[in-house]
Order: sequence, then structure tokens, then C-alpha cells
Amino acid sequence: MSNIPTKVQINEEGPREGFQFEKGVIPTERKIELIDSLSETGLNRIQIVSFVNPKAVPGMADAEQVVAGFNKKPGISYVGLWLNDKGLQRAIETQRLEVKGSVSLCASEPFLMRNQKRTMEENIPLQHQTMEMFKAHGVDVKRGAVMAAFGCNFAGDIPVETVLEVVRQAKEIAAAHGFNLQEMMLADTMAWATPASIKRVVGAVQDKHPELSITLHLHDTRGMGIANAYAGLEMGVKTFDAAVAGLGGCPFAGHRGAAGNVCTEDLVFMCDEMGIETGVNLEALLDSARLAEDIVGHPLPGSVMRGGSLRGLRNKIREAQTA
Amino acid sequence: MSNIPTKVQINEEGPREGFQFEKGVIPTERKIELIDSLSETGLNRIQIVSFVNPKAVPGMADAEQVVAGFNKKPGISYVGLWLNDKGLQRAIETQRLEVKGSVSLCASEPFLMRNQKRTMEENIPLQHQTMEMFKAHGVDVKRGAVMAAFGCNFAGDIPVETVLEVVRQAKEIAAAHGFNLQEMMLADTMAWATPASIKRVVGAVQDKHPELSITLHLHDTRGMGIANAYAGLEMGVKTFDAAVAGLGGCPFAGHRGAAGNVCTEDLVFMCDEMGIETGVNLEALLDSARLAEDIVGHPLPGSVMRGGSLRGLRNKIREAQTA
Repeated sequence: MSNIPTKVQINEEGPREGFQFEKGVIPTERKIELIDSLSETGLNRIQIVSFVNPKAVPGMADAEQVVAGFNKKPGISYVGLWLNDKGLQRAIETQRLEVKGSVSLCASEPFLMRNQKRTMEENIPLQHQTMEMFKAHGVDVKRGAVMAAFGCNFAGDIPVETVLEVVRQAKEIAAAHGFNLQEMMLADTMAWATPASIKRVVGAVQDKHPELSITLHLHDTRGMGIANAYAGLEMGVKTFDAAVAGLGGCPFAGHRGAAGNVCTEDLVFMCDEMGIETGVNLEALLDSARLAEDIVGHPLPGSVMRGGSLRGLRNKIREAQTA
Repeated sequence: MSNIPTKVQINEEGPREGFQFEKGVIPTERKIELIDSLSETGLNRIQIVSFVNPKAVPGMADAEQVVAGFNKKPGISYVGLWLNDKGLQRAIETQRLEVKGSVSLCASEPFLMRNQKRTMEENIPLQHQTMEMFKAHGVDVKRGAVMAAFGCNFAGDIPVETVLEVVRQAKEIAAAHGFNLQEMMLADTMAWATPASIKRVVGAVQDKHPELSITLHLHDTRGMGIANAYAGLEMGVKTFDAAVAGLGGCPFAGHRGAAGNVCTEDLVFMCDEMGIETGVNLEALLDSARLAEDIVGHPLPGSVMRGGSLRGLRNKIREAQTA
């Protein structure tokens, strides 16, 4: 247990993950309401929109209005997502987001073929073009990302060697353009990871690339999200992507088979209770989670917003004892 | 990770936990349908009913009919729960259940006061009476149980020393009647545990009472169930109580929207994927989980029944590759 960090960084992705995934139109002012609520929780990095083709993702057609409308709070990095030069340009033009580049690779060829219609080999020159694009815009690149690092619905299990090779490629691609990767995000894109594979893959990457700080992006589709985060903590992982209320998924209703990112407040709860500093106020975050549920209009996967925090119970017990 | 067992025992408690907790009457034949379905999964210990006052728990008024009606499959221990001599007698009279006794204590005095209107001190002579009752019926006692071992909604955090003292008392009570405890169940009755406290408490009990094999009874109210099970596995815990589809919840614990026991199929999924033998066929268990949802008529917490197993995906990928 000695590797467990005393402090972790949680990157909130709920607004972007959630609103992108939800069916039906969510009014712009309600999106802004959630972002403003999250700004009051102590979270210091919030991904709020993606700049994608509005025809492909109608739920994100109002990205510019959302970015223009939220209350920017000092000390918080508000970030967006983009997939191409046009998206990057849109992000920069808002002048209200922190714009940082990344080398984004995928450990599964069938997944890459399916989503981006290219082989892993064909992807490499395209990533070099992306680095040129960042350079042209004066955007720094410190982060790499490996999608499907723990398994893939179309490729099956992913050998650790493949992940290591993809990480190596990411570093090489960045270095060719004068960028020096410091952080590597490993994404369990299709929820194949278990605590054992988290330890195996994270451990291998740490051994081979000790200079990279690892971020885990975990999905909870098979109920392993929090256990996988714990396994990551045991490996010394200090940075986690998460989504308030588990936005991006829905345990009930029509979204069969879809569960979102690991739930931010459940992760904060676990960290709080284990004495790991997150900088986040759990009670405020629970308010945001309930707001998220109200906004999407259906139950979301988060547990602690239903079960309640222990701090509240401890306070009640203390009050009863001193009464 | 070296302590992780190669094989675990999963005690299914879904039928008893679930049907006790559900509001509204579930027809006897549907309860039997679930039990018979579970008998086909490879689970070898299934708790199917509790013999309690039908006025207090109307959902269990048909306990005898359920026990009389299910298809008893060789190699499976079907067990019941009881709280007093009358309940024990009812269990024995069915002649269809495996009847084993236990010393059941509680690490939280306020919880004991609330539910059984007695102090921890007052509880000890009553447990001695229970041992006499088991002896009179020729029932062996090998198991102890500690409720609220990880925290309590009415007492707050439970010191490890309290748990150790309660375990000592349980052994002493059993020994006074010639019983030799071999197993100690630690229950996170109100879902206060985190992986860190699982490790702390389990480790302390193992150090002090190395002859006891530990069973974890985990609730998932705050989303920590699977992570806590993983922490237990890392401590070498080999036996887990669980409920198919996450059926159940403690009706006495005082929180609304309470989630039930850790979900059996999610636990089996994690074990399967980490190479830990459970003896359970996950696909068959997923059928039982879906049946449970159909029977109670509302969504249940299980994740893998929605996300799907990986074995199914691997088969599909293999078929596509060989096609």
C-alpha cells in the first residue's frame, strides 16, 4: 500500500462526456448551470465541451455558446476536446479555454479502423500532421494518450507489449516535433480492465517509461471503475479522469450496455475516506451530481449521491452525542 | 498481489436478501424460479429464505412453501436465516436445508440497541443461550459474525480494537459450549468500508486470530463493493457473501435508496477476468440476474448484466476472425 499517493488530481469530464452522449437537446443554460456548479466544488480541471461536427454530435452544436456563457473561476483549467484542425481552431477562438495538445494513439487496430478508418501504421503520419498543427498554433504538447489500452470489443485482449509499443511511438512522435511528453493517459475505453490488468499494464508502462506520469481514464460499464481506480492508486497513479454522477452512461432506461466514466463523487468519496487529498468538497460535488441528474432527467449511475456521504452521518452522530 | 487466492467461495444471498427487502408480494413460484435458476449456475451455497415473524417481514411469510418447492440439486448447500429458537425450529422442520449455527455479534452498540434493544454486554448472555439452543438441536457452530465491523450510521467509525474484542468474545462464547470457530464473517452492514479499512480491519483480525478464515459481507450503497472485495482478495480473503443482480439491502440500516449486497455476477466477472476460480458459470449467472430483475419488476444494481461479459465478446471476435 506504500505507493498510494497522498494527493490526487481529478480531471472532471462530466459536462463533455455527458452532454455528448445524452439523447435529446439539453438547453445551453442548463449546461452552463452544471459547469458553474462544478466550479464551486474545488475541481480544478473541467472539460466542458467538444468541438465536433454538429451534424455528427448535435448535442454539442452549442459548444461556443456554452464556452461563452459559463462563469470562469480563477485557478480552474477549463478545457475542450477536438478531433481535427477545425475543432482546435474553434477551441482557440473562444479565448476562454486552456488549449493543450496531445498525441493520441490507439492500442487496437480494429477500433481505430472502425472509428477513424485507418490502420495503426497509417495513423502515425497523421499524428505527425497533428503535431505540426499544434506547433502552427503555438500549442504545447505534454500529454500522450492510449485508447483501448486494456482491451477492445473488436480486438479482444490487448497485449501489454502493444501498449508499450504505442507509448513508445507517442513519445517518438512528440519528440520529432520538439515536444517532450510528461504524462501518459491510459484509457479503458471499452471497460475491459480489472484491477489485475490495471496493475499489469500500469506497472509495465512505469517500468519502461519511468519519466511519464500516468493518468487513468476508466469506464464503469462492468462495475469495475472504482476497483480499477483503487488498483491504480496502489500503483501510485496520481491523476484520474472522471465524470460527475457517472454522466455519459445510464444504468437504467434505454441506454442498455452503456455506462459512463468512473463517477467523480464516488472516487472523491473513496479518496476522502482513505485520507487521500483531492481538493474537492464532496458535499458540494454531491449537489452538482444531483443537478446533473435533474438536467438529464433520468437516473445516473453515481452511488454516493444516493447512499450519502459519511461526513454527513458523522456530523449527525456528533450532534446527537453533544445534545 | 501474492496473497490473492487462486480460488474463492461465493455464498449467494440474493433470494433471502432480495425478497426480504422488496416491497410488495412476490409470488412463491417466482421465488422458487430464481432459486432453481441459481442452482444451475455452479453456485454451491445459496441462502434462500429467512424464518422471521411474518408480521414483521411479510415478504418472508411463505418461507416454508419456498423451501418445500425448490428443486434441490446435489452438491449445493441451501441455507436459511433465523433470529431465534422458533426460527431455527422452523428451519430444521423443513428437513430440506443445511442447518449450521453461528455466533452473531455486533461491533456497534447503538446499532444493536436500535435493532435488538440490548447493549453489547447484555447481548453476551443471550448469545450463550443461542449456543445452548444450537446444542439442544444438535446443530454445530463453526462460524462467527461481526455486524457493522467497518462503521455504523449510528456509532460512526468503529475502532479496530472493538472489532478485535468482538471477535475474541465470539470465540469465547463458542468455546464455552464446546464449539470451535473456524470462520469469521466481517459485515460492512451499512457500507462504511473502503479498500483501506478493509485491509486495516481484515489484517488486524488475521494477525490476532490467524486460525480464523475470514468471510466478507459487503454492501454497495456507496459504490465501494467491488473495490472492497478486491481489497479483501489482496488480503487473501477466500469467501464472500454476494447477491445476484445486487438484490437486497438492509431494511434496518436507516437509509433510503440503499443498495444491496455486492453483486454476485460483478464479483464473479472480476474473479474470472483475474484468473480466480469461482466455480460459477458467468453466462448462466447473468441469466439469473436478468430473471431477478424481471421478478422484482424494477432495475437492480448489477453492472455486468447490462455491460455484458467479455467471454461473449471474445467468442464473437474469434468467430469473426475464423469466418
